[in-house]
Parts: sequence; structure tokens; C-alpha cells
Amino acid sequence: MTREELLDQIKRKRSFLCVGLDPDLNRIPQHLLECEDPVFEFNKQIINATEPFAVAYKPNIAFFEALGSSGWDTLKKTVNYIPAHIFKIADAKRGDIGNTSSMYAKTFFEQMSFDAITITPYMGSDSVQPFLKFKNKWSVILAATSNSGAVDFQYLKTGSEFLYQQVVRKSSAWGSADNMMYVVGATRPETLTEIRKIIPEHFLLIPGVGAQGGDLKAVCNFGMTDQVGLLINSSRGIIYAANDENFAEAASLEAKKVRDEMATILKSKYPEI
Amino acid sequence: MTREELLDQIKRKRSFLCVGLDPDLNRIPQHLLECEDPVFEFNKQIINATEPFAVAYKPNIAFFEALGSSGWDTLKKTVNYIPAHIFKIADAKRGDIGNTSSMYAKTFFEQMSFDAITITPYMGSDSVQPFLKFKNKWSVILAATSNSGAVDFQYLKTGSEFLYQQVVRKSSAWGSADNMMYVVGATRPETLTEIRKIIPEHFLLIPGVGAQGGDLKAVCNFGMTDQVGLLINSSRGIIYAANDENFAEAASLEAKKVRDEMATILKSKYPEI
Repeated sequence: MTREELLDQIKRKRSFLCVGLDPDLNRIPQHLLECEDPVFEFNKQIINATEPFAVAYKPNIAFFEALGSSGWDTLKKTVNYIPAHIFKIADAKRGDIGNTSSMYAKTFFEQMSFDAITITPYMGSDSVQPFLKFKNKWSVILAATSNSGAVDFQYLKTGSEFLYQQVVRKSSAWGSADNMMYVVGATRPETLTEIRKIIPEHFLLIPGVGAQGGDLKAVCNFGMTDQVGLLINSSRGIIYAANDENFAEAASLEAKKVRDEMATILKSKYPEI
Repeated sequence: MTREELLDQIKRKRSFLCVGLDPDLNRIPQHLLECEDPVFEFNKQIINATEPFAVAYKPNIAFFEALGSSGWDTLKKTVNYIPAHIFKIADAKRGDIGNTSSMYAKTFFEQMSFDAITITPYMGSDSVQPFLKFKNKWSVILAATSNSGAVDFQYLKTGSEFLYQQVVRKSSAWGSADNMMYVVGATRPETLTEIRKIIPEHFLLIPGVGAQGGDLKAVCNFGMTDQVGLLINSSRGIIYAANDENFAEAASLEAKKVRDEMATILKSKYPEI
């Protein structure tokens, strides 16, 4: 998917919501356990219910791997079920030496029809570049994550900058705003300001709004570009809004609530959209 | 597996060789493609041929994921095929927020019988700690990797130290030499000296000897502890020593050659072993 196609969808849906799919057998509604593939059934109903309000889905690969080989089939079915015009991010946090990263890239971009994959930058350029060779596919690099451990290394000073700034500065030279995005947690809005000084145009994928306590308006104030430039992820807050037979409806209401807030922000920031 | 059990095996086999399993359908002997599960057949024959000389195997998860859901079954069969007394490392380079890391830990430690998993440290303490909760299981943290891109971030100065030193210093406080190891590339022996100043006792997993140009003797001079403290990985140099019908024999000869070199080093360093 190209940046223009993503932006078109954002304008059409008046939303920059990404729904994270972290399907945990212990948390999905128990009546689904009778289905042949409970996790796929859960994902399908969540996608049906939230699709009008979301421009991206982000399956968390750990939750599918935990199901064994059938989980891999469930992941594939889930990705195929997401409508083609919606942006699909494999939350895999991969990154390895060149020949291994190439394998991961083929798996997620060719064998499965993901548009993007999350990548951990610790191993440097040759661990990321294999992912950048695929046309209209995206590398979403971890910059500053939303978890408490982020401070351990990402916020170490290297020269006059924090490590996360160096990660963004160096890695952004390996690709462009047309094939790279960055993960920046919503829990530290001041970080967004610093990152926007380095990459004024790239899309940022922002976890941590909702369950982890980040604030949507603050994130938009500090992180938006003149072409939106944000995908806000919400996982548990939406998919586990309820865990009874009305779970899909509850997820839909929650997604709509976030979308409505986003529509208001878009209207005030970009009256022309 | 405990550290004592690993060390016992090293003494018994006079080897600290780890064989990396990176089974690529394009590189395995073509006659195997007729088998029902070519990759498992390849792994099985490689394990049979090298087991007398190896104390550890390290399946590279990317190469199994690339096969789709059947690859996941092949991985499980491979792990189960490795004799119980041999150390089994999932080369997965995982690391995510706590609940996701927990999922990965359960997958590799409980559903599959791996003893260890490689972990990327970028997300910090809460991304590693879920792996450390499993008794007699090991977290193998990336410190200084063998690839060229390692210099991009791992060798950035943070205060008076490089990032990789900070990674080792901080993370080693989260566990102990009984449940943590570190990946240190063989391609920069001076790095081993620096790391040994911080962690004099931990096992190090060393890739990059052989195909990537690292030198076994130099690595041992700089990295060995008084309890060996090294696992040297060789992947392509052994498993692709030949790609005809004699591939297993060629792999055996190559593994034996490395083991013989290791036995000589062990004898000179630890006459009492």
C-alpha cells in the first residue's frame, strides 16, 4: 500500500485508528470456544464490527504463535479476511542478520499479505534493509516504546541525544517516508516533539493510548504532520471492551468512540479534509 | 537445563560447539525434496551426524516460519528429535511488552521444549523479565552482534561506555549467570575483553566463527572463563559443508574438525578437565 492510499482511507473514514489484534484464548468470550477456530471467529467478528472505524489492523504475532501450527493458519486466514484497502501490520518486532531478515520479510510480505512489519533496530542497518527491498511494503521501526522498560536503553544519552533519537536519525536515511514508519509510545508526548524535529513527515504508529494511559489529544498536538502522519493503535481497549456475547457490538462502540474523537481532531486541524 | 548439566556435557564431549539449524529449501540437498518433510529429514540427518560433537543446537526460527504452518510442525519435530541432554536454543530474537513476551516465553519454553531463547534488549527490563520466570530456562540477550550493522547502535557511546556494555551491565542485574547468556559476535575479539570485565562468569553464545570470519583461538583467549563460559555457534559452515548425498557425512567431518580444535583448547586451558 502506498502512502497516498493510506491517506485517502484516513480522509474517507475520518479515522487514523489501528486496531491491535491480540487474541488470547483466556480472554475471548467463552462461547466462541465451541467454534472450530475460536480465534479466527473472534478476529472475524471484531473486524466486521470495527472495520467502518479503522484504517489499519495490527495482529500481534506472539498470540498466534502461542497456538502452535494452527495459529499460523489462523493468522493467515485473519490477514486474508481483512479487506484489501485496509493497512495490515504484522506486529512481529523482528530483526536479524541479513539472510535471516530476508526470510522474515518473505514470510510476512510475500507468503502473507501484510503491508508492514514492526522491526527492532538493535542490530542496525543490514538487519533492516532486507525489509525495505519490497515495493509498497513498510518497515515500522521501534523508536521509543510505551512500556516502562523503554527508559533502560532507549533513553540513554548518546552524545547530545537519546538513543531513540539516534535510531530515528540514522535509520531514516535507509529508506524514506514512503516505506518507513516509527513506533512511538503515547505515554511520553514530549518524545513526539523531539522525533518530529528529525522526521517531520513519516507516519508514526502510536501504541499506549487507552489501556496504557496515553492521551489522544496530546499525541495529536505533538505528533501530527500536515498530512496527518499518525496511526493510533488500540488493542485491549477495543477487542476486550466486553467478553460476553455482545463483545463485537461493544468493540464497535469503542472503536466508533475513538473514531469520533479522531474525526473532531481532523476537522479542527485540517478544515479542508 | 542447569549450568552444571551444560558444563558436564561440555566436559564429556570435549566440545562447546552449538550447531545452528538454518534449513533453507533452496540450499538443502535437492534429493531431500522428495521426502514428505524435507526440512525435518535434513535436520534429522544433520543432528544424527553432528550430535557426537555438539553440546547445543540453535534452530533459526525465521527459516521455519518461512515454511508456513507446516514449518511450525517441523520446528516442533526438530526440537523433539534433539536428544534431551543437549541444550536447545530458539534463535528467535524476540522481545516485546510484558504480556506479549510472556506469550513468546510460553510458546518456546512450554509448548516447545527449548532450553533457551535469544532476546533483543531494545525494549528494556519488562520485555526480558517474563522469560526469566521459567525455571532452568535461559534468556540469551543480544549484546554485540557479528553483523556489520552492529556498529550503528551497539557501538554508540553512552557516557564512558558503548551501548552494548550498558546492555550487559544493566540486564545482567535482572537475572544471574544461571539463567542468562549473551550473544557476542566472534568478529570483534576486543569486545569480549570488555564484556568479561562486566560479566566474568556468564556463558556467551558466539556466532561468526567460520562463515563470518571469526577466529576460534582468539575468541577463546579473550572470552573463556574458568568454567569455559562459551558456546560457539556454527551454522552454514557445518550444515552446508556439502549439498549432495554426502551432506550429513560432510557436516559430521566439519563438526568433528571444530570439536577437535575445541578439545585441544580445553586440554591446554583446563588440564584437570
